[in-house]
Amino acid sequence: MNTDIENIADQLMVNNRNDETIAPKYPVKSMILQLIKQLQQTLFPGYFETGCLQNRTMKYRLHSLLDEISSELAEQVYLALQFSPQYQSCEPETVKHASHEISLQFLSRLPVVKEYLETDVEAAYSGDPAAFNKSEIIISYPGIYAVMVYRLAHELHLLSVPLIPRIMTEHAKSVTGIDIHPGAVIGKYFFIDHGTGVVIGGTTIIGDHVKIYQGVTLGALSTSGGQKLKNVKRHPTICDHVTIYSGASILGGETVIGENAVVGGNAFVIASVPENTKVSIKTPELRYKNGSSPARNAPPPPEDWFYMI
Amino acid sequence: MNTDIENIADQLMVNNRNDETIAPKYPVKSMILQLIKQLQQTLFPGYFETGCLQNRTMKYRLHSLLDEISSELAEQVYLALQFSPQYQSCEPETVKHASHEISLQFLSRLPVVKEYLETDVEAAYSGDPAAFNKSEIIISYPGIYAVMVYRLAHELHLLSVPLIPRIMTEHAKSVTGIDIHPGAVIGKYFFIDHGTGVVIGGTTIIGDHVKIYQGVTLGALSTSGGQKLKNVKRHPTICDHVTIYSGASILGGETVIGENAVVGGNAFVIASVPENTKVSIKTPELRYKNGSSPARNAPPPPEDWFYMI
Amino acid sequence: MNTDIENIADQLMVNNRNDETIAPKYPVKSMILQLIKQLQQTLFPGYFETGCLQNRTMKYRLHSLLDEISSELAEQVYLALQFSPQYQSCEPETVKHASHEISLQFLSRLPVVKEYLETDVEAAYSGDPAAFNKSEIIISYPGIYAVMVYRLAHELHLLSVPLIPRIMTEHAKSVTGIDIHPGAVIGKYFFIDHGTGVVIGGTTIIGDHVKIYQGVTLGALSTSGGQKLKNVKRHPTICDHVTIYSGASILGGETVIGENAVVGGNAFVIASVPENTKVSIKTPELRYKNGSSPARNAPPPPEDWFYMI
Repeated sequence: MNTDIENIADQLMVNNRNDETIAPKYPVKSMILQLIKQLQQTLFPGYFETGCLQNRTMKYRLHSLLDEISSELAEQVYLALQFSPQYQSCEPETVKHASHEISLQFLSRLPVVKEYLETDVEAAYSGDPAAFNKSEIIISYPGIYAVMVYRLAHELHLLSVPLIPRIMTEHAKSVTGIDIHPGAVIGKYFFIDHGTGVVIGGTTIIGDHVKIYQGVTLGALSTSGGQKLKNVKRHPTICDHVTIYSGASILGGETVIGENAVVGGNAFVIASVPENTKVSIKTPELRYKNGSSPARNAPPPPEDWFYMI
Repeated sequence: MNTDIENIADQLMVNNRNDETIAPKYPVKSMILQLIKQLQQTLFPGYFETGCLQNRTMKYRLHSLLDEISSELAEQVYLALQFSPQYQSCEPETVKHASHEISLQFLSRLPVVKEYLETDVEAAYSGDPAAFNKSEIIISYPGIYAVMVYRLAHELHLLSVPLIPRIMTEHAKSVTGIDIHPGAVIGKYFFIDHGTGVVIGGTTIIGDHVKIYQGVTLGALSTSGGQKLKNVKRHPTICDHVTIYSGASILGGETVIGENAVVGGNAFVIASVPENTKVSIKTPELRYKNGSSPARNAPPPPEDWFYMI
Repeated sequence: MNTDIENIADQLMVNNRNDETIAPKYPVKSMILQLIKQLQQTLFPGYFETGCLQNRTMKYRLHSLLDEISSELAEQVYLALQFSPQYQSCEPETVKHASHEISLQFLSRLPVVKEYLETDVEAAYSGDPAAFNKSEIIISYPGIYAVMVYRLAHELHLLSVPLIPRIMTEHAKSVTGIDIHPGAVIGKYFFIDHGTGVVIGGTTIIGDHVKIYQGVTLGALSTSGGQKLKNVKRHPTICDHVTIYSGASILGGETVIGENAVVGGNAFVIASVPENTKVSIKTPELRYKNGSSPARNAPPPPEDWFYMI
């Protein structure tokens, strides 16, 4: 039996991609998930504590949290920068210094991230009749969690940190079903309701006060070019005050949805939509059938009916 | 560096929503997830134990589990009741007493919840050709997990506990992709297959023997009224023995799907459907295209063909 | 209060399905999740370690991991085989021996599983413009994780182990939104992008170089026969080099998608598609409407336009 296992171990080593004497060390996912938790505590002080804190104590708590995050993040950034073309031939000391700088620059963006998130919570509360209060939204809404993780990952993406931003957003997708690429640019008052199946591509641009429902894709028309399309704008631009109902797909890098436009449920949009316009699919015809009578069509919906969910 | 972090901490405190001297303490998510695990063990004794139990021992195990749940739940309910309009101006002792009462009332409903869940397992087994046996369903089916958590959350919702029911169902959504609002009313023998993307709104009413597939939305026609729609019935009523195939959307508070009706895949239903009726969308036309010949339409499907998945 | 809890415990025992003196012990989910983690470490050595390993050390690490997996897996297989018709009347010693044999046979398949997974990573890298490098794919792509867990579960399925394969794939579904039944047969270079909502049924057959996007269902036309359909081929066959865009459903056990075919977004396919053919739905018509003008249709898309995402 032991010989068998030795053979298997040998075979699993044969194809090993790591040819270097010392295997590269990758950013550690469990540490990154820990960082997300700590960042959530700094962005919403008091909401994710297990103990009871006085507001005076809260500031010391925040301070020590930020200290911890600062050094842990620098460590993970250091591991990630090994994969950055910019740092690959640098001395370890240079990379270490850069990691600490990046970590601090990231932290200095937290107040702005918090400011944006406050507007997202506001949008969720005013947009969802089922919301009990803002605490419920902060503690339990998947849309807020996914957008928070995206906003944090986006800051690291802007600082050209490899690997970590994507590990963060893929984790948020795993938890929420909402898939936002760290490269997307998203304005204030952003609300995603339910959210399962939402995909927002890496070159998407979204304005302020945009509301999106479950199953919406902001995607590319085709990715059959593969790696050749890497830096091309492949995903749409959504202007301020747009609402996109569930199951809609908006595709293509030149597609612009104008201000105040509304995209109806399941609409499939591959061309720009002017401002103040409602786009919806033609009502899908239904066939009714029962035991005694043959299939018949449903009565047509009223003229001004608008397909939304 | 330390000065930087101090500045950041200060900025993160500025907008802090908690103006009170003592920050309010929220129900603790990790404790609520722990409660869900323990409740699962009481509802399906023996299935989620790591050690081997004799049936005689099982009863003592159940007893001690219920004891633990009782006090832990009371503690979380106490934290949640701070956000209840009814208890906001009460003495701590009154709230504490109410929390214990609510916790016990909840526990007294567990046998009924179990009775319902047994019928759900039965429905999953008889409805799914891929089911190996009932143990597989109890241990691994996401539909059973989501419905179990919903049934527990619904009982707390009926007892007017804020925050906790939604934390529970959002957790189940995170694990299963199935989003059932705690306010929905759902009968016996309920089966959700696959389930990713299912959304069941808070004022939905579902009868017995209903079967739902992945991607089904039981939703509102529009929520653009926001908080003003809070207590309005916005979601449909599904009668007994209805089957709803994948991707279908049934919308609106006055929409009633009659007994024994079948709603076909991707159907979009915004008006009531009579009993014993099959509703399906007109077969979507397909275009075929290959290198040598131009696009042509697919042959029409047979007349009596019914769109299901 | 204690009397109440005693009553509740009694009621929860009444319906207890376990009538035997000693309750059966089920495979333990937390152990199986632990096994998945360890197997991931053996398949991608170095990527999921928290410490820094030299390549020389890596081999010893692999060896000890495989040793651990071998005995832990045998233990879980032993628990699962109680539910296998083949072993139900066997002596414990016979079952124990079989469990160890199965565990070793499973491990001997790991190098093949690794070989397949290397091709899957290759396919993800060449197919996704957003992929930074292969490490990012291995560490963070949900498609790779779901396919890895499926490939492992499929090997246990081939060895007729009950319960464990499904627990594994349902866990992967929970993490990724991708639902692949362990019974499906899937070739090399398989890539699932985004993936939320993907359902691949238990009798599906998929060739090499197949690419699938989010929301694709490879399903049955109807499962209304329930348990009677248990061993019937209900799901489609997908040949080599097929691409299936998001939201498409391909249904039925006799449906074959020929080599090099492309199935467009949201297409609903219930009949075979010849090789080298593109199938797409007729462009969904859109209505545009704004304050001043009535609804009008969108301009028709160009003739050769192909519906993809």
